[in-house]
Amino acid sequence: MAEKLTPREKNFSEWYVDVVLKSKLADYSDVKGCMVIRPNGYALWENIQRGLDGMFKATGHKNAYFPLLIPESFLRKEAEHVEGFAPQLAVVTHAGGKKLEEAYVIRPTSETIINSMFARWIQSYRDLPLLLNQWANVMRWEMRTRLFLRTTEFLWQEGHTCHETEAEAQEEVLRMLEVYRTFAEEWMAMPVLAGQKSDSEKFAGALRTYSIEAMMQDRKALQAGTSHNLGQNFAKAFGTQFQGRDGQQHFVWQTSWGASTRLIGGLVMTHSDDAGLVIPPKLAPTHVVIVVIGKGEERGPVTAKAQAVAEDLRRAGLSVLVDDDESKGPGFKYFEYELAGVCLRMELGPKDLAKGACVLVRRDDRSKEAVPLDQAVTVAKAKLDAMQKALFERAKAFRDANTFVVGSLEEMKKRADDGFLVAQWCLAPACEARIKEETGGVTSRNRPFDLKQEPGSCVVCGSPSSGAWVWSKAY
Amino acid sequence: MAEKLTPREKNFSEWYVDVVLKSKLADYSDVKGCMVIRPNGYALWENIQRGLDGMFKATGHKNAYFPLLIPESFLRKEAEHVEGFAPQLAVVTHAGGKKLEEAYVIRPTSETIINSMFARWIQSYRDLPLLLNQWANVMRWEMRTRLFLRTTEFLWQEGHTCHETEAEAQEEVLRMLEVYRTFAEEWMAMPVLAGQKSDSEKFAGALRTYSIEAMMQDRKALQAGTSHNLGQNFAKAFGTQFQGRDGQQHFVWQTSWGASTRLIGGLVMTHSDDAGLVIPPKLAPTHVVIVVIGKGEERGPVTAKAQAVAEDLRRAGLSVLVDDDESKGPGFKYFEYELAGVCLRMELGPKDLAKGACVLVRRDDRSKEAVPLDQAVTVAKAKLDAMQKALFERAKAFRDANTFVVGSLEEMKKRADDGFLVAQWCLAPACEARIKEETGGVTSRNRPFDLKQEPGSCVVCGSPSSGAWVWSKAY
Repeated sequence: MAEKLTPREKNFSEWYVDVVLKSKLADYSDVKGCMVIRPNGYALWENIQRGLDGMFKATGHKNAYFPLLIPESFLRKEAEHVEGFAPQLAVVTHAGGKKLEEAYVIRPTSETIINSMFARWIQSYRDLPLLLNQWANVMRWEMRTRLFLRTTEFLWQEGHTCHETEAEAQEEVLRMLEVYRTFAEEWMAMPVLAGQKSDSEKFAGALRTYSIEAMMQDRKALQAGTSHNLGQNFAKAFGTQFQGRDGQQHFVWQTSWGASTRLIGGLVMTHSDDAGLVIPPKLAPTHVVIVVIGKGEERGPVTAKAQAVAEDLRRAGLSVLVDDDESKGPGFKYFEYELAGVCLRMELGPKDLAKGACVLVRRDDRSKEAVPLDQAVTVAKAKLDAMQKALFERAKAFRDANTFVVGSLEEMKKRADDGFLVAQWCLAPACEARIKEETGGVTSRNRPFDLKQEPGSCVVCGSPSSGAWVWSKAY
Repeated sequence: MAEKLTPREKNFSEWYVDVVLKSKLADYSDVKGCMVIRPNGYALWENIQRGLDGMFKATGHKNAYFPLLIPESFLRKEAEHVEGFAPQLAVVTHAGGKKLEEAYVIRPTSETIINSMFARWIQSYRDLPLLLNQWANVMRWEMRTRLFLRTTEFLWQEGHTCHETEAEAQEEVLRMLEVYRTFAEEWMAMPVLAGQKSDSEKFAGALRTYSIEAMMQDRKALQAGTSHNLGQNFAKAFGTQFQGRDGQQHFVWQTSWGASTRLIGGLVMTHSDDAGLVIPPKLAPTHVVIVVIGKGEERGPVTAKAQAVAEDLRRAGLSVLVDDDESKGPGFKYFEYELAGVCLRMELGPKDLAKGACVLVRRDDRSKEAVPLDQAVTVAKAKLDAMQKALFERAKAFRDANTFVVGSLEEMKKRADDGFLVAQWCLAPACEARIKEETGGVTSRNRPFDLKQEPGSCVVCGSPSSGAWVWSKAY
């Protein structure tokens, strides 16, 4: 029989691991820092992929696939890039029974190998923009790992685009950040702050990095997607040039952007509770479970009706499970389906059937309602819509209630674990480093576009500020 | 301007490489033996994935994801397995800036790492059958590579299942072989022979391997999917046990089955011609291209009509492109869309519009028909259905015309390059080896289920035969 989860209040980290393992989203493997994504977790990833992939294609991107291995020398062509990734590389030194002349690294990201191809494919401005995306596994050797949030291998998508002008590249960077924001908020029901990262937090090799940042239930931040303006850094390193409208050779302007299986960790930490997973309907593998109640012969007509209702619900586009297993009691089943994050539970027994009704229970707020069977489809759909909205609103209210404007380093130290801190900053790396040190790990998350910006002075040094940034401890 | 392809008659291998490169399905990379799958090729892979994935799920399988890296010691646990794969492994010896205590190999296939998890997850017969599939990249260091057909890294799916009894495992093996057969014939329009492989051709670690084998246009065979009965070999190596209905511990019975991006190579070599790609409508990324004809002002109404027809076609579920680019002539465009394998070309100019008609041209047989615009959707759909059938029938007729029953080794030598040879064989490895040697590379493909079996004697040694096998040179 299943045990209860560690309550969030008692130990948020243990609760998180409990939820992931017991709802069978993932498991630890024998490979250092790598996890196994189990069917329940992979079903979420498939739904995330479907949602994002549709949005990428709607914005003109096409999928492609580039090699897993990258010649070591490629990485060294862009100085900041290799410096940033060198400590995290896994290196293939032998293959086919022999030592290799040049070692390969397993891609930590694919800017270099992709630019080696772009340099061949692009001749003229007519070949631009070139808008590609890749769904792939990548590997970054990590010291401390956490299921989904930080693993040595992870699954992700990486967009890579080339443009004729700097302005077009910047437009693309912001367009894809907006895709991430829309996906996070409308599909994952996870409110995010979209904005620019500080120099110390930007991608190794980028001019500028932008991110979406969400607040988890323990009030820490999760970076949930990044979009980079690469300028001409990689183009110059790899000679990715085109003949412009002026007949001259120019380096392309590039972007890259990525989101990963870490989103699943964010989904869990945003919505789930002490009973297990809570999944927004738009991403839920199972929308409705119909639990057949009753004993022996009286179950027959109930099961028949449950199957009929299930068919109606499926025709309305919902994913439905009918549980007619007599060997387990309803209480046990309710526990299991709450743990698994099924959005709606329909209880149907002989008495309900006699009344032509059923009971619908929403997973997020446990609200219970008796519903006439002939309205089951309409009501179920309405409840799912309401649940999608409620999850977003609740998470947003939580974030807003735990966001504080702070005017001094002292205040930041006091509020270091309280949530998002809005603080003026002069952009000096020294001030940023001091905040991190004195607060026990609060870092700049981003400078959100939507934050009202007024003149001010840096909370550390008092110099004129670059604006208000959001700071927080983070995953 | 595009150059013509090498004709098949002149040099089939060069033709194949020409088609793949010039239709931009794939390109060579700087990583030994690895290719880049370009958007045109990846779109085919996405359609193949969608088709197969739907069939896997309809037969009760769920997707999961296991680590890319496998501890070297895992591979050694199954003696035949490590012997079979050792020469092809890529080995990670360093990571995170240090030499690893135990090296990892990049998965060449995942039986071992997956069994290490199965051994934890399975306790009782109630946990069975366990039916998983993984979509992933794998790596096998190859000496001689060919785009799609044999590359060091490739994309594939690998099914891995556990069963209570040997009979259930065998049923699963044949069920998934039948899924592959159905997919090959009904989606890819590629006729295949389903049957059992000889011991020398079976998967390293399996009891029995089954395959589907197709005939390419050069009359060589392509193994297009395999399904393995693993018996209890991996279960014993990893201790994958369950408590049976009798209360005792038993090892599970396992299967694995896979198909890969090699299918794209098979698709090309089955249907394409000297003008480029021919793609069966069920897998085609683009079903119809509408080419707008005419000059200057007269194009306006034509383009408007083309857009309207495109919308009608899309509502009917087709993928449609409208080409209104005035800077290129129709001839150039026809050439490009034939190369790209668009199934139907619709030519629409001012004169057609005046007559309320258009011209539809089928890619496979170049048949041309004037069609009233108000019947365009119906006729286009009918033509696509007819094309799907015709491609299969033509390929099947070709295979049948190039299949020969042979009664002696002498005859096999004469017919070594003629196609599929049906020959009696006693199962002795020595006879199989002799055929291969004396024919310059003809190998046993499989013993097809559908082949009428009569008593006979081995074409090499004259001993009583195990039945008629199909032999051929192969990719």
